[in-house]
Amino acid sequence: MTIFKKILLLLIGITGPSFGQERPPNIIVIFVDDLGYGDLSSFGHPTIQTPYIDQMAQEGAKLSQFYVGASICTPSRAALLTGRLPIRSGMAGSKNSGNVLYPRSTGGLPQSEKTIAEAVKEQGYTTAIVGKWHLGHLPEFLPLNHGFDYYFGIPYSNDMLPPRYKKAPKLPLYENKEIIENDPNQKLLTKRYTEKVVDFIKANKDNPFFLYYPNNFPHTPLHVSDDFENRSKRGLYGDVVEEIDWSVGEILKTLKELNIDENTLVVFTSDNGPWLKRGKNGGSAGLLYEGKASTYEGGFRVPAVVRWPGKIPANQTFDAITNAMDLYPTILKLVGSPLPEDRTLDGVDLMPLLSGEEKKANDVVYYYLRDELYAIRKGSWKAHFITKPSYSKEKPKVHKTPKLFNIDVDPSEKYEIGEHHPEIIEEIKDIYKEHQKTIEPVKSQLDLGY
Amino acid sequence: MTIFKKILLLLIGITGPSFGQERPPNIIVIFVDDLGYGDLSSFGHPTIQTPYIDQMAQEGAKLSQFYVGASICTPSRAALLTGRLPIRSGMAGSKNSGNVLYPRSTGGLPQSEKTIAEAVKEQGYTTAIVGKWHLGHLPEFLPLNHGFDYYFGIPYSNDMLPPRYKKAPKLPLYENKEIIENDPNQKLLTKRYTEKVVDFIKANKDNPFFLYYPNNFPHTPLHVSDDFENRSKRGLYGDVVEEIDWSVGEILKTLKELNIDENTLVVFTSDNGPWLKRGKNGGSAGLLYEGKASTYEGGFRVPAVVRWPGKIPANQTFDAITNAMDLYPTILKLVGSPLPEDRTLDGVDLMPLLSGEEKKANDVVYYYLRDELYAIRKGSWKAHFITKPSYSKEKPKVHKTPKLFNIDVDPSEKYEIGEHHPEIIEEIKDIYKEHQKTIEPVKSQLDLGY
Repeated sequence: MTIFKKILLLLIGITGPSFGQERPPNIIVIFVDDLGYGDLSSFGHPTIQTPYIDQMAQEGAKLSQFYVGASICTPSRAALLTGRLPIRSGMAGSKNSGNVLYPRSTGGLPQSEKTIAEAVKEQGYTTAIVGKWHLGHLPEFLPLNHGFDYYFGIPYSNDMLPPRYKKAPKLPLYENKEIIENDPNQKLLTKRYTEKVVDFIKANKDNPFFLYYPNNFPHTPLHVSDDFENRSKRGLYGDVVEEIDWSVGEILKTLKELNIDENTLVVFTSDNGPWLKRGKNGGSAGLLYEGKASTYEGGFRVPAVVRWPGKIPANQTFDAITNAMDLYPTILKLVGSPLPEDRTLDGVDLMPLLSGEEKKANDVVYYYLRDELYAIRKGSWKAHFITKPSYSKEKPKVHKTPKLFNIDVDPSEKYEIGEHHPEIIEEIKDIYKEHQKTIEPVKSQLDLGY
Repeated sequence: MTIFKKILLLLIGITGPSFGQERPPNIIVIFVDDLGYGDLSSFGHPTIQTPYIDQMAQEGAKLSQFYVGASICTPSRAALLTGRLPIRSGMAGSKNSGNVLYPRSTGGLPQSEKTIAEAVKEQGYTTAIVGKWHLGHLPEFLPLNHGFDYYFGIPYSNDMLPPRYKKAPKLPLYENKEIIENDPNQKLLTKRYTEKVVDFIKANKDNPFFLYYPNNFPHTPLHVSDDFENRSKRGLYGDVVEEIDWSVGEILKTLKELNIDENTLVVFTSDNGPWLKRGKNGGSAGLLYEGKASTYEGGFRVPAVVRWPGKIPANQTFDAITNAMDLYPTILKLVGSPLPEDRTLDGVDLMPLLSGEEKKANDVVYYYLRDELYAIRKGSWKAHFITKPSYSKEKPKVHKTPKLFNIDVDPSEKYEIGEHHPEIIEEIKDIYKEHQKTIEPVKSQLDLGY
């Protein structure tokens, strides 16, 4: 990477003036794994203490209705990086496949997709991913083939190893294209990720960078360094979240020390809701119903905090609908990259909302489970066309008349009100039909076989 | 009240020096009605915006494990004002009575009880209650007979009027000992309370005061002034909470304007959990299970925020166990009033915890329903001896082996773990027995007939 960086620095020197008066901002996206809506102190958890993330929210904003593109790892990550629903990129799974990529899967994020990393790299950004990839682990799918200059981390979830996955190899730890360790000590991962992240920021303090930090915790199995063991009243899950909070604190401290925090947009969020099946080792969705792998709010809505001093007013709570897929057009606009015109994008630029200019962003949410559209939210209203409890053997229930809720009034999805609002149901059915027209059939990468 | 106040001002002039170097602080206790654990933005609600209370928390502290003395109005209020479990004062109800005092009840808080107001008044404080009393409405039980110099508000809940209560009179609005209106326009109550509260603070800016502000909302029926109607995405419930938030903001603004905020301890909390039976017009306990009238956490644990610049470090979250009954010894100590020695008190001084000197306060919680002890929390552990869903006709279930939960790890009371910890169950059974010895039989004021 060193030569690469030198060339990049050179390029930046040349292309620098084209950025105009103001240098484009650095972007850091922290995307943790399976953290639930209710698992931060600032989102209401009583015994998990997250002072650094909470302070980040005070210096920036909480997004209280922030969604992801899918309620499970692989498709949610694809959605974030491509700005598109996973159904469009082939990363959604199908009835034949599992929900995500497994150690012996042969599919991955297609080259035809253009990630945030690729787009910002074209604008002279240095790019890195530190953490879990989970968008294909055959060589052609790895991060360095998707716009990242640097990769340190694991290729899929931290539980995808023997004996849980009988035919899986030992969990590989990558640096760039190489496996540098097998079966790394997971207790040290958050510390090691943090070192790499801080090093990357320091090395790039003088040129714009995009840092994607998908820490693989608090996905189970839970591991924590000795410094954080038995620190949280919440038990091991709390210890793990508190170590992540420390890690976020290290990032913010580094930005302040380097005096680049006013030129850096930092986003903290989670890839999907809590893995409730894991009991005390899984998180909590707070007042939201259900969790990971569900199309209820607990699966799709995650805690989110953004910070950019001077650009995002401090100490706000935005309750407009926002989405991880909005980061794509938001970031591309910020770096001066034109949006690709040959494909459907599902997000909108969030800066008008976050800067206080606008009250709304995109106000439609699509809740897919694999390649099936289960529910749609439009404004305050959410209609469930299909429902299914997560991780159960119960068959999906198709609702001839969709089950309608007012999510702003009733975030816990307790009070069905469709009979009073048939016109809303009709409106959402129309949105469904229009949306279907935008979906082109693509091969699912998740059932390409093993 | 004017003559009263003049005399008091005189007395303060005389007794002033005995307060020592530092003037004792003003005390404001805001005690709202049926607000759930999850109903503030800073406690995780997505669509209720409470910027003033949230700012109060940032300038002070959130208490994330704050309990009340009972999960329903009358006994909870008695507990707060006397520092004693309602079972000790006869305010607990019994099998023969309802849960609370009703318009035709003849009982009330006995004169033998010594309220916070009485104790601080002896030390030269001016005292006021603005809002809902609910500790007896025959003349002898009203606030001016329990240590308050001034009373403005209603004597019991805002739903205790015809036609809901057939034989009830129109809802009376009191000023001191007089009914000044019948059937006041409830839409204006929060505004009127706020005016009275602000006036009281201004009138007493130069002498120590105790202000108890039990706003009768968001107890149903919900009413809100025109300024706040349709303001919250959460609907009418959110409008009402946002008007209360505004009211809290007015109080804090007044304290700052008068330059007395560094000499004023402000406490904001709720009398019990959300009235879930009220559906969308009731609140949310967030990640806690159950609500009002229950002995699960959602009934007994409420949001709480304290603020005292210079004395309570800013921007803390305390997850130690704390309790509304702790306010009694806390406040008495602050004003220099000796604790009564002829009775059992159930709270402890909170200042060592809040100032950062100590890590813990009292670590036992008793969960009574009427006069029966249903559950005990000791440290992280909670044992349910009896359980019952709130507002159901189901009979209470007595557990031969109490159901044990680790509340710090599992605040939602999902995972019973008694079989792994028989020694904890034994310890809590011993606490039960020791506690029983401290309970002296008293006549319940709630079943004195109508």
